[in-house]
Formats: sequence, structure tokens, C-alpha cells
Amino acid sequence: MIGYAFMGRVHSQAWRNVAAFFELPAKPEMRVICGRSKEATEAAAARMGWAEAVTDWREVVARDDVDIIDICTPGDSHAEIAIAALAAGKHVICEKPLANTVEEAIRMAEAAARGPGKSMVAFNYRRVPAVALARQLVAEGRLGEIRHVRAQYLQDWIVDPDFPLVWRLRKDKAGSGALGDIGAHIIDTAEFVTGQRVVGVTGLTETFVKERPLEGGSRTDRGTVTVDDAALFVGRMSGGALASFEATRFATGRKNALRIELNGALGSLYFDFEAMNELWVSDGGAGFTRTLVTEPEHPYAGAWWPPGHGLGYEHTFTHEIKDFLEAIAAGADPSPSFADGLRVQRVLEAVEQSNGAYKEIP
Amino acid sequence: MIGYAFMGRVHSQAWRNVAAFFELPAKPEMRVICGRSKEATEAAAARMGWAEAVTDWREVVARDDVDIIDICTPGDSHAEIAIAALAAGKHVICEKPLANTVEEAIRMAEAAARGPGKSMVAFNYRRVPAVALARQLVAEGRLGEIRHVRAQYLQDWIVDPDFPLVWRLRKDKAGSGALGDIGAHIIDTAEFVTGQRVVGVTGLTETFVKERPLEGGSRTDRGTVTVDDAALFVGRMSGGALASFEATRFATGRKNALRIELNGALGSLYFDFEAMNELWVSDGGAGFTRTLVTEPEHPYAGAWWPPGHGLGYEHTFTHEIKDFLEAIAAGADPSPSFADGLRVQRVLEAVEQSNGAYKEIP
Amino acid sequence: MIGYAFMGRVHSQAWRNVAAFFELPAKPEMRVICGRSKEATEAAAARMGWAEAVTDWREVVARDDVDIIDICTPGDSHAEIAIAALAAGKHVICEKPLANTVEEAIRMAEAAARGPGKSMVAFNYRRVPAVALARQLVAEGRLGEIRHVRAQYLQDWIVDPDFPLVWRLRKDKAGSGALGDIGAHIIDTAEFVTGQRVVGVTGLTETFVKERPLEGGSRTDRGTVTVDDAALFVGRMSGGALASFEATRFATGRKNALRIELNGALGSLYFDFEAMNELWVSDGGAGFTRTLVTEPEHPYAGAWWPPGHGLGYEHTFTHEIKDFLEAIAAGADPSPSFADGLRVQRVLEAVEQSNGAYKEIP
Amino acid sequence: MIGYAFMGRVHSQAWRNVAAFFELPAKPEMRVICGRSKEATEAAAARMGWAEAVTDWREVVARDDVDIIDICTPGDSHAEIAIAALAAGKHVICEKPLANTVEEAIRMAEAAARGPGKSMVAFNYRRVPAVALARQLVAEGRLGEIRHVRAQYLQDWIVDPDFPLVWRLRKDKAGSGALGDIGAHIIDTAEFVTGQRVVGVTGLTETFVKERPLEGGSRTDRGTVTVDDAALFVGRMSGGALASFEATRFATGRKNALRIELNGALGSLYFDFEAMNELWVSDGGAGFTRTLVTEPEHPYAGAWWPPGHGLGYEHTFTHEIKDFLEAIAAGADPSPSFADGLRVQRVLEAVEQSNGAYKEIP
Repeated sequence: MIGYAFMGRVHSQAWRNVAAFFELPAKPEMRVICGRSKEATEAAAARMGWAEAVTDWREVVARDDVDIIDICTPGDSHAEIAIAALAAGKHVICEKPLANTVEEAIRMAEAAARGPGKSMVAFNYRRVPAVALARQLVAEGRLGEIRHVRAQYLQDWIVDPDFPLVWRLRKDKAGSGALGDIGAHIIDTAEFVTGQRVVGVTGLTETFVKERPLEGGSRTDRGTVTVDDAALFVGRMSGGALASFEATRFATGRKNALRIELNGALGSLYFDFEAMNELWVSDGGAGFTRTLVTEPEHPYAGAWWPPGHGLGYEHTFTHEIKDFLEAIAAGADPSPSFADGLRVQRVLEAVEQSNGAYKEIP
Repeated sequence: MIGYAFMGRVHSQAWRNVAAFFELPAKPEMRVICGRSKEATEAAAARMGWAEAVTDWREVVARDDVDIIDICTPGDSHAEIAIAALAAGKHVICEKPLANTVEEAIRMAEAAARGPGKSMVAFNYRRVPAVALARQLVAEGRLGEIRHVRAQYLQDWIVDPDFPLVWRLRKDKAGSGALGDIGAHIIDTAEFVTGQRVVGVTGLTETFVKERPLEGGSRTDRGTVTVDDAALFVGRMSGGALASFEATRFATGRKNALRIELNGALGSLYFDFEAMNELWVSDGGAGFTRTLVTEPEHPYAGAWWPPGHGLGYEHTFTHEIKDFLEAIAAGADPSPSFADGLRVQRVLEAVEQSNGAYKEIP
Repeated sequence: MIGYAFMGRVHSQAWRNVAAFFELPAKPEMRVICGRSKEATEAAAARMGWAEAVTDWREVVARDDVDIIDICTPGDSHAEIAIAALAAGKHVICEKPLANTVEEAIRMAEAAARGPGKSMVAFNYRRVPAVALARQLVAEGRLGEIRHVRAQYLQDWIVDPDFPLVWRLRKDKAGSGALGDIGAHIIDTAEFVTGQRVVGVTGLTETFVKERPLEGGSRTDRGTVTVDDAALFVGRMSGGALASFEATRFATGRKNALRIELNGALGSLYFDFEAMNELWVSDGGAGFTRTLVTEPEHPYAGAWWPPGHGLGYEHTFTHEIKDFLEAIAAGADPSPSFADGLRVQRVLEAVEQSNGAYKEIP
Repeated sequence: MIGYAFMGRVHSQAWRNVAAFFELPAKPEMRVICGRSKEATEAAAARMGWAEAVTDWREVVARDDVDIIDICTPGDSHAEIAIAALAAGKHVICEKPLANTVEEAIRMAEAAARGPGKSMVAFNYRRVPAVALARQLVAEGRLGEIRHVRAQYLQDWIVDPDFPLVWRLRKDKAGSGALGDIGAHIIDTAEFVTGQRVVGVTGLTETFVKERPLEGGSRTDRGTVTVDDAALFVGRMSGGALASFEATRFATGRKNALRIELNGALGSLYFDFEAMNELWVSDGGAGFTRTLVTEPEHPYAGAWWPPGHGLGYEHTFTHEIKDFLEAIAAGADPSPSFADGLRVQRVLEAVEQSNGAYKEIP
């Protein structure tokens, strides 16, 4: 694993526990974790259960006893690490967004296509049982032809203008702001659940707080925010649906509200990650059914606890790792692939460039 | 009153009951109702409590014993009736959207400005106690600077492709479809609650079912739907907020979901008409408070029942009539005025013409 | 109508509007209202639409031009007025609880049985469309054999210890406290929806604030509260279900939360009056469907507005009056009858006497 | 650890992960797991991360390299194992209910009091962050004097009359049915959150389905259900509150609805485990605030993920183990103690014996 911060912690939790709940073709061994600071990486390794800690990712990629590389770094290093790892014959799972630019994403997708290693981009919300169930219902035709997609990802962690200028607010590290960080998730979720592609968008982005305190600096020492705080866009899907999207870090009081609603000719469904164990489904009558997606027959749920004993955020990563390992063992292409990640990247770019004009997605 | 269908029924209910709950400067007398069919209009008059029934609106406008004209007809006749009534010195309340075109709306607003009668456009949702409370909270600064407006009006009554081609689906009668019928409400609600204007929009409209059975015809006798089924748009508000809007009659399972969420620097609020007695408010902490807007100190609520004994749809009209009568008696300009209705009309036109391009509102 | 306070206002609203929405066998005429204060009664008459105002209920009962007596007074006068009205051949509708004692209720039920006038006790919550739909679903067998009834009526209007000693807190006027005022409603609702009778109970009552300021007196001038603040009881239903009941005026933050949940062998349902247009129904799967009870085919709903345009508290009384008028015209026994009211009264008495011991209902 | 079924799995998950998220005084080592079947226990050990698997619990208790015994067996063996382990100087954590009878529970509490090992009964729901926050709010006086406790634990897993006669439905193994299994949890939760004791109860129990298919037998091979399916009771708390309790496995459509509402003089709170990351709090105004209990300052939450990234069922056990280890290291008495477990046992016995009569808790 490369990176040991937030994403590193949650991926580690998945690697450590996946074999206790799922019958796997091979049990993962947590060989080595890599970070820039020797001391911090060693502490992380001890805490999270990695056998070794190193500081040079090239060394990890070069090792013979490593089969899988898990990339949990900021977006500016994804392309270099992933391409090197694929070239070394490793399987690669990479955090989202796939890259900071379409150009990088194209190179990554090409490297992934060359193989022989398998690759996956970590859109973990596909592995929420309720989201997986939503896709299943759509695929079975239970909603009929889809007319509307309504997707939002609402957070509020930078509403305070004195929140510092962390790397996620710098274009050179993060590529974009709310758009790439959380907008990417709702674009992927919309495409995943509907089985349709976003074919064109028009929208607006905004940076509400244009300067922020530098990290580690005094409060008056400020730098420029170089990414968007919010992105709103509407678009068309390949199957004829209209779609609306909104990603923001300024939705005061909303903490991690990834939401999606679909309206079809026969039914509808609604999901909000803040109540992640629930899926609301309408069969076209006068209401929506709140389904607790914790029944044995629901996706992933049967491996865990009895009905009504809900799962949490981290389980989405455990499911992701499980699916990745199964795909590798089967010689199948994991989903979402780097090609899926590239497609999302193209939508992100179109939104960034839109400024109120309609852009078709190539 | 001109018109006795859906809107006529609910306006009549307001006229009949307003004096029983509010201390009014003058008690309304329900003098005469007008419709095209003599028989049906007489039946409506008997049922709804009007003293007389006539079939020529010009006759009503000409009467000396009529002070107020209430226009409940489809949009294609609003301009002619309202302008005539204003010219005859009457006070006029007119259903929304104000007109079918910006040109008509301009002429109506000009007639209203000339007076001497007062005029009002019937955006009744302003008079939901929860919506009025929302505006009050914003005006008091409780939410701080508004960053996001998120407005939806979701219905599903024409999802069935065999639903007939009623007047609301014909451009010549209705002007537009979901956009003018329900989109107008969320534009007005957004402007009312925030105290800001929509200054520019980009969006998409769609007609999902392009042909429908003619009314009274056989099922195979079909005509062309000449209005939109759905309209999605994003825009900017005069105070710097980003706004997203969606109006659709194809949101299967959603019956009358007029929803609005505001996110400000200090707090947020959320409303859904399907639970019309509730307002959800966040003070910026980790949650939203579900407030039952039925306390004596809440707008309009004190006139009715004890806390927790909710109101219904029709009460919004009773409140509207009360405010209209008070404004007339005070010689004040009722709100929303025809000028407000014109502004909404300009936004509707911009959305209709957008087709994915950004349009500034004049 | 005898009485013009809270209940008088809401009954008047029902009498004034019922004919505008329902096809009735006869259109009611609001002849005369009676109260103790001449001036206040006249003001009420003018406001609510009654032709005359008088101060002696015996005079009203004696009039030939009055067919129906509507009793909206406190419980201590119900028996005398109702029995006199029935003796005079009038039809009688009487507010709940039917009486202040079982003995009074027996005499009233006997008078009702003698006729010839029809009689009804005003358990208005039976006429919430969602509650009527609940009964219908049970009657159709959709829930299977009922195992659990879970009923609560939660209010909070006397939590403040300085709230005055109003008549509802005095045993001589009100008979009992939360028990008779709101506990009566949930007993009736439970019996109505299930079609079963309460056959035995054990429970507890409590008066949390034992002294309160006298009305009109100084704050230090206090009197003893002679009724319960809360009543909790569990019991058995005639069909084998277990039932729990709780009525309280000390549920801080709950305003008018009349709730009932049924669990059956095949399904469940849940209702909360604070969201009165919703019924939650489970078919035994992994969730509950939130149904908006505003569809044309739902009880009472078709007479009003389109789907999703909710009703309010007062409409329950309009429906009650409609059903009462139809029963009178048809020569049928209105429901709930005085006999139903007596049965509720017996349960109230059993709870009052229980003090933790099981009491069978005669 | 003794036992490897449902509870063994979830306790193992806690032992395996606790050190990755919490700074502990000592890192637990998962030495040995014990079960009746050698093969199944070995498979469980391999899967869940235990170093060894054995089949005789006495051997485990006798080992020098074992400091802590975790008892995850059915209730009929709790007393014997726990008392032996305590006698051997081990620390003991024991699943709930503490025992199958009050007599056993007394002996266990006495053994615990003798020490020197520390002991804890595993009422895991105390460690839901929202429940811990609820207790904190009450302790800080935010709700004022508590007047009402309303607790329910609703499941539906045996509604089907063909569900087999598993050990939880046999008195010899389980002690009681819904009462001891889930009723125990709400009694403990009510006492924990309020800081008050249940001092008396009156209630009813029922077995709706009296015979069920034997496990492993044919469908017609049936045995008698010897425990309750449901238990309803009302009672008084030591601080003057009234309390209602309901535990049932026949609440069709409710999966794991452990709910508690408190109403105090100043405020209220409400929790439902089916939405375990939410706590609803009222400050006495017109509503309840839905708080996502995922903020860094909330109990336990800061150790995990960012706000809005919820936890699941298993985390309650991780928190429990963390608190247990901290108490052992500090030489403090863990909470809930065996004495707490005994007190719950006395309430269970009183409910079992009540049959509608009031029983004081010794």
C-alpha cells in the first residue's frame, strides 16, 4: 500500500478483515506499507497490521513478494505509481479520482489495457449494499425506462473561512475541488446504478471562500484556494434520462450526504449515504418503501450480521477488496476499471470547462 | 371569480372561510362566479357558496358591486381579463404563471402599475407557514450568507403514456408544461425565501412522451404534446448563491414534492410540501431540527388550531386571500405583485430558450 | 351546537364546509349556537356562520327547527344535554370522552338505544384518511392475525409547572386528565382499526405537577391538580393481540403525536398524526412503505385535492359530519355509537382503578 | 473466548480490530477459542484470527497464558464458566443476559465481587455512540427531570410459524424468550441512559406460536416453545419517571428496532438502532433535532472516520472491549458490572412473574 492517511487507514481495515467474512480464492497478506515519513509510516504499519514500512514506492513496486499495489495517495501521484506498477506486472487498485487530468487518465487506462495485471479504481460507494441493490433493481427492469437521475454529494467541512488551505484545496495536488473529490463519486454512482453514460453536461462551479490560512501558518498568512468549492450541473444520459448533479463542501449541516434518486416509467428509488443501510423504493404507487438492506439475500449483507444490524462506511471498502480479489483470481476485469475512471474524468473536465455552456462527453 | 375548476374550488374555499379565522378589515362577499358552461357554473356556485353564476367575464368586470376579480382560468386568458379588470378599477388576484409569454406579463405588470386597483399573483406556496417561517429565518440572518439554493417540484401524474392530452399539455393554453406550471412555483419560492433574484440560468427541458390520446377521443386518436414534461436548470442568484432547479411531472412516486433547501454560512433549512407542516432547520451543528410549524408564534398558525394539529393545502390560499385583503385595505402593494410574476416569467423564458446555454435574466 | 370554544370552532368549520365537498342527502343549515356568555356566543356565531346565538341549551333542545344537536362542552354536561336532546327526538353528536363516569355513559347509551334520534360520539381520528385506510387494510386481512397494538398519544402542553389549572386539569369538569382526553382517542382508534375490543388492562397513572396556579389568580395562588398527567397501560385484545397504550401531556417536544402501530402475521402498519397524511405499511418484507393517503381511491381523499395536496386536522371533523349526516338519512346507526363510547369509558375506568393490577373490562 | 457462533464472531471482530483504532494500555492477543466441535472451532479460529482452537473450556480457564475469558455461549453455561474463570483469577466478559435465573446471577455477582479479576456483562448497546451521547446529555441535566422512558425492542425473525425450535426458544437453554434476549437490553439501556433504576413493574407475556418444528426434524415433528414470544410491561423508575417497555420477536417488518425515548422537564431524546448513527434531541421547542453522532467530539466516534461516515453494529463491541481493557489496566470496575447484570435479571424475573400484577424489584 502506498499512502497511510485517511484512505490508507480505511483500505487497511478492509485488507485486515476481508478474509474473516468472505470465502476468498486467496487470503491477502499485508506485506508492506509506504509513506514519506519513516517514523509515521512505521507507526501506521504497527497500528494497521502491515509487516513492513518503507518510504520509497519504487522499492515496493520492484519487490517480487508483492502482487498487488493499493494506491492511497493524492491524485497528483496516481498516474506515475499506477503506470509503474502495471509495467512491473502488478495488480493495481487506485483511489479516485483516477487522475488529476484527462491526459493522465488516458495514459493510465492504456497501461491498464496492456496488462497483464488487473486494475480497479476505488469508487467504494458502488459497494454499499443499498447501492448495489439499486443497480440490481434497475438491471432487472423494475423501474422501467429511466427518466430522471438526481444526484447530490453534500458536505460542509470547509464552511468555516478559517479552515486551512489543505492539499484538497490546491489544484496542483488535488486536480479539482468538490468536483473531483465527491462529484466524481456521484457521476460514477449515476452511471453504475443506471447502466447509462453521461453524454453531455452544462453547469457552473464556484469558489465561495477564495483565500484561506496556510497550513501551519498564522491565521493572517493566507493563500489562494485554487479549486472549486461547489459544482452544479445538469446533463443527459445515454439512455435518454435527464440528470442533475451537485457536489459541494458548503452544504451546512450535511455531513456526507451522497444521494441519488432515479425515476423510471414503472418505479423509483432513493438513497442517502447518511442513512447508508436504507434504500427507498417506489413501485409507482403512492409511496416509497424504506428497505433495510440488511437481509441475507441483499448484496454483501449475508456475510455479516442478522437483519437490522447495520454496516458502516468501512464495509464498502471490504466489499471492494473482496470483489477485486475475486476478479484477479478469476482472470476477469475488475469493475470499475481504469476505463470507467477515465470516463468519469472526462465528465469532470467537461464540467470544469462548461461555465454554463453545454459540453458533449467524448 | 372567473373559472370554477381546480383552482376555482380551492380559491372559493379560501373566500368562504377566511373571515372565520382572521380579523379582517372587511368581510368578503362571494358575489358572482363565471364559467363558460351555464349549468356547470351554476352547480359550482351552489356548491361553493357564490350568490350568482354567469358565463361572460366581461359582464363581471363591468359590475359596480364587484370590487375584486379572482382569475382562476388557464394562462392564455390571464392577460386579457386582468388588464380589463384593472382598467375597470378592480383589484385583481390572478393564478400563476402570470401569463403565457413575457410580452403578456409585461403588459399585465404595466396595467398593475397604473392602478388604481391592487394586484397579486397567486403563488400560494409563499403562504405555507413553514415557507413563511423560512423566509423570516433568512431575513433575520439566521442562516448567514446564502451559498446554495436547491429547489425541486416533483410530480408524477402524467407518467402513464395513455394519460390524455389535457389543456396543461398544450402550449397554446398553458404556455409551457412542468416549467410554467410548477417550475414557476419553485422560482418564486426561491426568490421569496432568499430575498434574492435569479440572475442567470442554464438548463435542459424534455418531453418524454411526445404523443398522447386526445381528450374524449379513442385511445388511438393521438395528438402532439407541445410542452415540456420536465425542466432542469442551474443558475446564479443576485446575492452570490448557486441554485439548482428541477420541475417534472415524471418523478414516479412523488406526488406534490415542492422542496427547497438553503445552505448558508451559518445554517441551513429544508422544506418538502409533502410534509407541509414541517420545516427542517440546521444551526450549523451536526443535524437538522424537524420543526412542526404549528406553534402560535409561527406565521398564520396561531389563527387555527393548537400545536401539532396541522394544516392542509387549502389553507395556503386562505392565507393568501387574507394578506390580499389586508393589503387592499391598507392601500399597500400586495406581494407577490404582477412585477414579481413578470420576473418569474423572464426566468421561465430563459430556461425555455437555454437548451444548455447560459442566459442572463434581464 | 352547544359550546363555542376549541371544539365548537372546529365543528363549526366542518358544518360550514361539508356540503361543498361531499354529495349529501341534505345540506346542513347552521341554525343556532349556544354558550354561557351572550356576548361571546354572539361573536362566535357571527364569526363561524351560525344564524342565532343563545345562552340556554334547554331552549335549543326544545326548538322545532333544530334536528341535530352537536355537544361541544366539557364532559360534565354531556350526559344531561345528550339525554335531554335524545328525549326530544333530536339526533345527537357528542364530543369525547362520552362522559365523566361509566354511570353517566351507561345512561347515555341507554337513551341512545331508545332513539328515535341517531347518536354518535366524536372520535374524529377515525376519520383521518390514513386511519380509515388502516382499518380497511386490516379488515381485508392484509396484515393477517394481529399480534401487537402499540398506541401512544403524546402531547407536552402542560410541562411548564406554571401552566394554569384549566378545566381540563380538574376532575369535576373533565372526569380525568390525559387518560380521558387523549387516552380515550387511542383506545377507540385501537378498537376501530383492529376490529377488536380491549378485554383487560394493567397500568399506572401519575400526576407529575401536583399544584398549579389558579386561572386568573396570581402565580402564588395555587390549586390542586385532580387528574392524571399521564397514563400507561398494557392489555389484551379480544382477538388475542397484546396492546400497549400511553397517554401523556408531558412528552416534551411531542405536540399531538397520536400514534398507532399494528403488527400482524402478514404485515404491519404505522401512523402518527403529526404526519397525518402518511400511513406506513409493511407487507412483511424488509421495510415499511410511506404511503401518502391522498389518492382518489383513499377514504375521503377523493373529495378534496389532487394527490400529494394534504389535508389538515379540521378535515377529520368534516368527514365525521358527512358520515353522521349520511347515517341519519339512511336510518342507519352512526359509528362510533354511544355504545362504543361507553366501552371506551369502561376501559378508562379500569385504567384509573388499576394501580398496577389487572382489570378485566366488563 | 468460549463460543464461536454469532456472538463469537462479533466479539472476535472487536478483539481483532480494537488496537487499530484506540490507544490501548495493552494490545490484546487472540490466544485461544473454545467450542464443542473440534473441526468447527478450528475453522472458526482460522477465519477469525485465534491462534488455537480447543474443545474444553476448563482447559482454557486453567491456562497461565490467558488473562481474559470472553463468554459467548448460551445463558445456561454462563454461571459455571464465569465463576470458574473468576476463581482462576481471570478477568471475565460475559454475554447477556448474565444468567438464566436470578439465583445464578447472584452467585456470579458474588464471585465478581470477590475478584481479583474484573468482570463485565456485554450490554453492547451502551456503546452505540448515540446511546453514550444520550446518557451524557441526561447526566449534564440537559433534559431536566426525567418523566417518561419509552423503550422497545422489536424484531420479527420468528413470525413464520414454521421457523424451527432453536435454542433461543427453549427455556432450559435460554432462560426466557424475547424478554431475556432483547428485553434485557432495553432494561439495561433505560437504566444506563437515565441513571435510574427500575423499581417496579406490571406486565404481560405471551407465546403466540406454541409449537414449532424441531431443528433437523421434519416439518411435522414439532416441539413446545417454552419461552415468551413477547413481553410488555410498564413500571416506575427510582427517580420518579414512568416507563414502558416492549420486547417482541413478532413485530413484522421491524428487524432490530431497539428504541428508547426519554421525556424530561426541559427536553427529550429518541434513538432507534435501525438508524444507529442518529440521535434525536429536543430542547423543549417545537421539534426534534436529528443529530448524526459521527462528530469527533461524540463518544467513540473520533477514533473512526470523518463526520457523516457512519459506524455499524460490530463497532459497539469494539468499544466495549476497549472500555473493558482500559478498566482492567486502570484497576477500575468495568461497567456494566455483573451487579448491573443481576439487577436486570431481577427485573426480568419480576416481569415473568407479573401476569398483570405489580411487582417491586428487590
